[in-house]
Amino acid sequence: MTSERIHALLVEVAAGRLSVEEASRRLSGFPVAFCREDGEVVARLDTQRAARHGFPEVVLGQGKRFSHLEAIIGQAMGREDPLLITRLTGKRIRRLTVRYPELQHEPGTGCLFRAGQDGRAPHGLVGVLCAGTSDIGVAREAALVARLMGARVETHFDAGVAGLHRLLAADALLRTARVFVVVAGMEGALPSVVGGLVDKPVIAVPTSAGYGAAFGGLTALLGMLNSCAANVTVVNIDNGFGAGYVAGLINRL
Amino acid sequence: MTSERIHALLVEVAAGRLSVEEASRRLSGFPVAFCREDGEVVARLDTQRAARHGFPEVVLGQGKRFSHLEAIIGQAMGREDPLLITRLTGKRIRRLTVRYPELQHEPGTGCLFRAGQDGRAPHGLVGVLCAGTSDIGVAREAALVARLMGARVETHFDAGVAGLHRLLAADALLRTARVFVVVAGMEGALPSVVGGLVDKPVIAVPTSAGYGAAFGGLTALLGMLNSCAANVTVVNIDNGFGAGYVAGLINRL
Amino acid sequence: MTSERIHALLVEVAAGRLSVEEASRRLSGFPVAFCREDGEVVARLDTQRAARHGFPEVVLGQGKRFSHLEAIIGQAMGREDPLLITRLTGKRIRRLTVRYPELQHEPGTGCLFRAGQDGRAPHGLVGVLCAGTSDIGVAREAALVARLMGARVETHFDAGVAGLHRLLAADALLRTARVFVVVAGMEGALPSVVGGLVDKPVIAVPTSAGYGAAFGGLTALLGMLNSCAANVTVVNIDNGFGAGYVAGLINRL
Amino acid sequence: MTSERIHALLVEVAAGRLSVEEASRRLSGFPVAFCREDGEVVARLDTQRAARHGFPEVVLGQGKRFSHLEAIIGQAMGREDPLLITRLTGKRIRRLTVRYPELQHEPGTGCLFRAGQDGRAPHGLVGVLCAGTSDIGVAREAALVARLMGARVETHFDAGVAGLHRLLAADALLRTARVFVVVAGMEGALPSVVGGLVDKPVIAVPTSAGYGAAFGGLTALLGMLNSCAANVTVVNIDNGFGAGYVAGLINRL
Amino acid sequence: MTSERIHALLVEVAAGRLSVEEASRRLSGFPVAFCREDGEVVARLDTQRAARHGFPEVVLGQGKRFSHLEAIIGQAMGREDPLLITRLTGKRIRRLTVRYPELQHEPGTGCLFRAGQDGRAPHGLVGVLCAGTSDIGVAREAALVARLMGARVETHFDAGVAGLHRLLAADALLRTARVFVVVAGMEGALPSVVGGLVDKPVIAVPTSAGYGAAFGGLTALLGMLNSCAANVTVVNIDNGFGAGYVAGLINRL
Amino acid sequence: MTSERIHALLVEVAAGRLSVEEASRRLSGFPVAFCREDGEVVARLDTQRAARHGFPEVVLGQGKRFSHLEAIIGQAMGREDPLLITRLTGKRIRRLTVRYPELQHEPGTGCLFRAGQDGRAPHGLVGVLCAGTSDIGVAREAALVARLMGARVETHFDAGVAGLHRLLAADALLRTARVFVVVAGMEGALPSVVGGLVDKPVIAVPTSAGYGAAFGGLTALLGMLNSCAANVTVVNIDNGFGAGYVAGLINRL
Amino acid sequence: MTSERIHALLVEVAAGRLSVEEASRRLSGFPVAFCREDGEVVARLDTQRAARHGFPEVVLGQGKRFSHLEAIIGQAMGREDPLLITRLTGKRIRRLTVRYPELQHEPGTGCLFRAGQDGRAPHGLVGVLCAGTSDIGVAREAALVARLMGARVETHFDAGVAGLHRLLAADALLRTARVFVVVAGMEGALPSVVGGLVDKPVIAVPTSAGYGAAFGGLTALLGMLNSCAANVTVVNIDNGFGAGYVAGLINRL
Amino acid sequence: MTSERIHALLVEVAAGRLSVEEASRRLSGFPVAFCREDGEVVARLDTQRAARHGFPEVVLGQGKRFSHLEAIIGQAMGREDPLLITRLTGKRIRRLTVRYPELQHEPGTGCLFRAGQDGRAPHGLVGVLCAGTSDIGVAREAALVARLMGARVETHFDAGVAGLHRLLAADALLRTARVFVVVAGMEGALPSVVGGLVDKPVIAVPTSAGYGAAFGGLTALLGMLNSCAANVTVVNIDNGFGAGYVAGLINRL
Repeated sequence: MTSERIHALLVEVAAGRLSVEEASRRLSGFPVAFCREDGEVVARLDTQRAARHGFPEVVLGQGKRFSHLEAIIGQAMGREDPLLITRLTGKRIRRLTVRYPELQHEPGTGCLFRAGQDGRAPHGLVGVLCAGTSDIGVAREAALVARLMGARVETHFDAGVAGLHRLLAADALLRTARVFVVVAGMEGALPSVVGGLVDKPVIAVPTSAGYGAAFGGLTALLGMLNSCAANVTVVNIDNGFGAGYVAGLINRL
Repeated sequence: MTSERIHALLVEVAAGRLSVEEASRRLSGFPVAFCREDGEVVARLDTQRAARHGFPEVVLGQGKRFSHLEAIIGQAMGREDPLLITRLTGKRIRRLTVRYPELQHEPGTGCLFRAGQDGRAPHGLVGVLCAGTSDIGVAREAALVARLMGARVETHFDAGVAGLHRLLAADALLRTARVFVVVAGMEGALPSVVGGLVDKPVIAVPTSAGYGAAFGGLTALLGMLNSCAANVTVVNIDNGFGAGYVAGLINRL
Repeated sequence: MTSERIHALLVEVAAGRLSVEEASRRLSGFPVAFCREDGEVVARLDTQRAARHGFPEVVLGQGKRFSHLEAIIGQAMGREDPLLITRLTGKRIRRLTVRYPELQHEPGTGCLFRAGQDGRAPHGLVGVLCAGTSDIGVAREAALVARLMGARVETHFDAGVAGLHRLLAADALLRTARVFVVVAGMEGALPSVVGGLVDKPVIAVPTSAGYGAAFGGLTALLGMLNSCAANVTVVNIDNGFGAGYVAGLINRL
Repeated sequence: MTSERIHALLVEVAAGRLSVEEASRRLSGFPVAFCREDGEVVARLDTQRAARHGFPEVVLGQGKRFSHLEAIIGQAMGREDPLLITRLTGKRIRRLTVRYPELQHEPGTGCLFRAGQDGRAPHGLVGVLCAGTSDIGVAREAALVARLMGARVETHFDAGVAGLHRLLAADALLRTARVFVVVAGMEGALPSVVGGLVDKPVIAVPTSAGYGAAFGGLTALLGMLNSCAANVTVVNIDNGFGAGYVAGLINRL
Repeated sequence: MTSERIHALLVEVAAGRLSVEEASRRLSGFPVAFCREDGEVVARLDTQRAARHGFPEVVLGQGKRFSHLEAIIGQAMGREDPLLITRLTGKRIRRLTVRYPELQHEPGTGCLFRAGQDGRAPHGLVGVLCAGTSDIGVAREAALVARLMGARVETHFDAGVAGLHRLLAADALLRTARVFVVVAGMEGALPSVVGGLVDKPVIAVPTSAGYGAAFGGLTALLGMLNSCAANVTVVNIDNGFGAGYVAGLINRL
Repeated sequence: MTSERIHALLVEVAAGRLSVEEASRRLSGFPVAFCREDGEVVARLDTQRAARHGFPEVVLGQGKRFSHLEAIIGQAMGREDPLLITRLTGKRIRRLTVRYPELQHEPGTGCLFRAGQDGRAPHGLVGVLCAGTSDIGVAREAALVARLMGARVETHFDAGVAGLHRLLAADALLRTARVFVVVAGMEGALPSVVGGLVDKPVIAVPTSAGYGAAFGGLTALLGMLNSCAANVTVVNIDNGFGAGYVAGLINRL
Repeated sequence: MTSERIHALLVEVAAGRLSVEEASRRLSGFPVAFCREDGEVVARLDTQRAARHGFPEVVLGQGKRFSHLEAIIGQAMGREDPLLITRLTGKRIRRLTVRYPELQHEPGTGCLFRAGQDGRAPHGLVGVLCAGTSDIGVAREAALVARLMGARVETHFDAGVAGLHRLLAADALLRTARVFVVVAGMEGALPSVVGGLVDKPVIAVPTSAGYGAAFGGLTALLGMLNSCAANVTVVNIDNGFGAGYVAGLINRL
Repeated sequence: MTSERIHALLVEVAAGRLSVEEASRRLSGFPVAFCREDGEVVARLDTQRAARHGFPEVVLGQGKRFSHLEAIIGQAMGREDPLLITRLTGKRIRRLTVRYPELQHEPGTGCLFRAGQDGRAPHGLVGVLCAGTSDIGVAREAALVARLMGARVETHFDAGVAGLHRLLAADALLRTARVFVVVAGMEGALPSVVGGLVDKPVIAVPTSAGYGAAFGGLTALLGMLNSCAANVTVVNIDNGFGAGYVAGLINRL
């Protein structure tokens, strides 16, 4: 918020043309929903962004104590926005779906979600490809997120570069999607090959699939960052969520 | 190219509805311009993509022997497409601009380029921000590439997170651009902060600015990959070119 | 202990102005409490520092065999100093609290402690902030330690940089604390932003929260070491204890 | 597939000398067997390569969900080619051998397999050596794969370089094999020593045996890549399969 | 700036009790001095902090193009605040001191500076120690910064842990300083030993002194982060500036 | 040399059926040519292997003092075997070719060599491919070595995976070579794609081409080690020599 | 074995002055005891070295299948040499001590052993120190090994550098031992300090004690390799065995 | 220095049986020679150790400013002890030998030295081996240091494991030396092989010889730390000095 805008705002207030309340709201930024445990704030939800833009409200399930997670989800369930909880263990998924039967589970992804009800048809087209069967979970997470953001999504799995014919079979998808999410573990070469075949943005997701010198996805990550195709950008290892989110954003443009 | 399409094509040929030449062209893919040294092919340029889409033809200057570079540039200069040569040393820039005076130099970037002449006005808006003065060269490379791809570009330099007021001064740009390139070295935190302020795609570029545990940009790269903002994707260290390219692609959608 | 001081001391002894016992005590340094198992010394406690300065006596619980841990705690419980045992598993916490009911447990931290009884009111103010809900355990450890050292502590949790309004809500704390502990995982950017807002020392604590290229906290650690804010120093990953300790020291000055 | 070949093919079709079907088959590449789960393709098997060349069809067991693994194996069991499934846990081996009793288990390797029945005698000779007893599992995997590809295999285990007499006892094997697989963990020095004793290709396999600065096989891997013997090439850590596969390929030449 | 404070401010404005100008100033944060090259902003100086608090204005010399550096220094020289430019090469130092003879050079540090003229005597005491002769440059940088911030500084160089008597000779300094900067390369053990001898904060600075597995200071950095002394915090490799800055901050408390 | 063979040999000697000289020669292994400087042995050449097998005698030029290099080359030039010296700087190449005009230089490789004169025609076919123009030097080194070992070699340069049509243009070579050397920097994906197209051994050579997160070839190296094609083995970064050597060995089988 | 010695030996045989059997024995090196599983050799024990020198026969327990371990121990138990098995899990220790009650267990080390019965009194003196209570297990392993090799051993535990008085209390040991084993985790600084106090060889053992940036002992390892004390050499992380072995060797000189 | 000893000493002083001066000397430890620049102490030499034990006084030349180096050498030249300066550039060597003609230069090592004149004949035997010609400089540094400490030294160069006959030619040395220094770059396998052939301590020195994945000696270092021979300890990369020093210490026992 620049000085000029602040000054202008204050002039409006001083001139009586703008109520204090409205100016205050404009200046103070976004409302926050507080999640508390024993009275202490343990999370601050940015409700407005989700509510106003139709984005899902997203909660990273991993690393949080379960009591904190419950406080957050309880808060969010009280509203009507689409909701997504990622990186949950099987045990946590079971506990949460018992408690909140309206939450849906996307198999193989560790995600629970509640879709929005805006009634709008999916639009655009996001292509989600993956190199191996082991990458399907991450690819599905990306597809789920893009769908929650309103995109039409098509997938094409197990299309690694050591069998190019498997990739070329996705020819129709390669020609029609507006943006691609390409998921691969091991050497992570698929995004480069896809990037060379299309002239749309490609969001590459390295996965932790592989062993030995795959180093938990580091090799795929480095490979993607060094892609010889110029239309490739990269997200964190196994971050299907982030890739789907950005694909959804681009698809909206 | 899927089996179905191949089959359909052949049926057309067998039926006499499609000439052998045309079918062959469709099947064999893209024409290539060969760059030779002593008769040996040392580079294969993908001329069609650039020619057909108005993308610049891009040559990575680093790592190539100068004789190879000359062979490639000589080939490219014979056509009329926009041309971009990146990562050149000062010495190479001087030698090439003497030989090809029509090449322009973007200060601080190591880039030479020849803009296209399609006469179209720039469209859309790409925001290019950087954290420190040391990051300006990479930021300018990104801005140049996006411009060569037809985008309108605005920049805002030296807006690192340790002085938030410097970033908030870019408020207008933050509200209007369709896509952002955010360049930062050292801890690379700027893309996360920008990502939290906008709901557009943010392409983060780590730079090798910094010393000690900056590890030549690795720290900034890792930080950006772990961004707590979901709308951030990442390219290679110092890869202003790639970020500008993807921003240009997204801006076209 | 310099030569001059030693010489002076000896002159006093030779002159009969200082007893052998007192000189010996001055020269031999600090008393040590021995913890033994089967007669063998397995730990040497520096009791004097804690007793004399009101610091808590601190035992790192991790990595020690349980029998060694018991030997040490048994020794320490026999005195009256404040005591802190860190990095305990849930199982060890249960076993130790059964045996020593006077030990208190700080939820989410893996710490057991016994506060001192000097009756002095807390003084100064240490601000403890964290970026995400997953970082709360480490932040609470830091807060506990600073409190055990006599500081008044205020906390502000879940204030990551992707939602700056959440941090700016801590405005009052940012203006009044004498020293800050800032805890963050993932890209670890919060200390830089806090460092830019205050002109007090900021002790940054990277946490192992995150996944993939977070590398167990390494990314946050590197980011903090490269902070563009000059008032930031760093401790080991998840080392809430160390950060709280130094904050407590500084708060005493 | 070059332009010339495509053109020639189309001329044949246009001239009526080649059926559309046959040309299509030649152009479209390899047939694929689809493995589905709930109607969605989760794997694409390259059946032709295995069927035509007598190579085993290979399934990487690690990282796949069990339901996906079952879909793939079910597909493969329906044909008659040799089959190999690698990197299975003990639990998965038990479940699969109950369901498919014709699958054989190679102890210590995590592999299940079904040999082919072409009745040809093994030919050539592949030497498989390993440095320590801990490397035997990986060495056996390599030996199994080479045998499935038709090679005669001899092994020599526990021949590490700290006891050269143990290696020299393999003198006969060293003089007669056409290609070697040399497996070692820890410092991974055995391939260099073997490489100096023979003038045949040596395929080095680092293993994750060791502790501390062995870093899960990284040390052995780096050592082998820096071998002072020029006839050594390297595969991934614990990748007995790959080494046996390439040895089998070379042995066929 | 919290919502409450914004609201209160606006009420004051609406009530006519606060001028628009003053409210605007309070809200808009810190003034910035723009450094331009060819009209483009290449740096934004935070003049107020330095001016108001007596901190030096600090410019990181490394990584900036010389023209940018000149633009910044030119801006800063026009004011009267203390100024510090760090990490300059010998060549840049020579060029700048010719142009700005009032800049002083601290030998071995790569720093130029202009001290303030507030006439206040140095206060407090900061102890700066280093382990080896190679670390003296970094140690002097820290000492310079602390002095520019008003501290009295004493140094004790070449006191590495392999000769404890060299450290113990600093006994008087160890007993009297309020805060310590301890600089060491190679294994970086000195801060732990100092940390055990004092009950004040110790800021550890790893240096790139050493060779081989010193890895340019990484080993010292890691060692310091794992210090067994609880009063040690760490800054980036060779970051004498940062350590001196924090020591100066603490010394002011 | 096994105990049995030693025993048999001695029985022959004791029985007078074998001369002491011949038995000694068999037992003592390979003759060595000593290279001396000031009387001290600085290198021991394994002349027999080269002489007997027609392999080139190979000297690693890098890292040796020039006087040592001269001692070795002087020794080798006195015989008639093919000779190869690798990894020479331009300056050393100039000095050596002045002194030994019979040495030939392969442009871009840093290699000097003297081919053998056995008059045999090249045999077999080794395919050498590379991904980018920057990789040509390493690829030529591999091709040179394979030729010196008697192979017929065909090359195909600049065929990176982001433009598959460039690779597919090498269709004829892909179908006819007995073994492949595939050279690539950056993400190093080409060997996987080639490996999927052929059923021959593929020797992958990572190069140091690239920047940033290419880490001097580490990324390409890791990618190749994790190739999803099973027929790929890997050599050290930029080790064109090793790859050509093994390709030459395999081509001889 | 040099050519001259081989020649001389053969002359003796040819002259009838040496029996074939004796010459064969001299040439063929060391006898080996084979450990078999299902007829296949899974380990080759170097029995002679242990038997002849009074060294313990050592078996690395980690990484071996239990059946292999049993085959090896069964072989070894049939002889009378001292025996040591290292890096055993608690479960394996229980199974083996049931089967071989004569094996003794050293608490905290994961070692089983059977001492020799040569009746010789321990000689020399090896000092074994460790920095923290968590390092005691590794230190005891070193002490055990040195004792099995005939040394007299004294230990001094929990003497980390943050409390120098704890180390100086070992003054007598520091003055009398012939060689030192110094064990430390975290920053691993103790060997440098000990190395500065003594003029005997110091064998440093990094341990995996610590957390976060201790990286499983890597930090301690690197610190020790960079020790500023010249009399320090280093072994692998947690390798108490190796340190004790070399200390035992040195103590024998 | 333990409490008991201090107490006893004081009793002696108080009783008049020990002069204050003598007691002070015993307590205060070692005398130090100060090296000053502009009055400031830049180095503290531990003269007594060298003088009393006949060890060389050692100055690490690398990383020090030349003026500091001169101050130190000037100090040392004023005494009569043996002196060693290591890791000097060629330029510094030339400057210093002009100024101090009595300093000798050991070719290829970067060392200057002045031997002592105690007239004692060398004793014992230290074996110094290296794997390749590139390692000779480091090996010579080790040999020089051991000689300066009174050892008889024999060397055997270029004996890498890919040509075992080159190592076995050192048979006599392997049987007679009391301690070994084994120097190797690349994969660093030589110490393991030597360690298996001898029952004496082996000090392994990794060198930075090699390229690509040799990572400046890291690969050799890791390999040596994981040696399968138990009698191997390791020093820093290229640290011939340290290895020679410890070998000299052991040789004295």
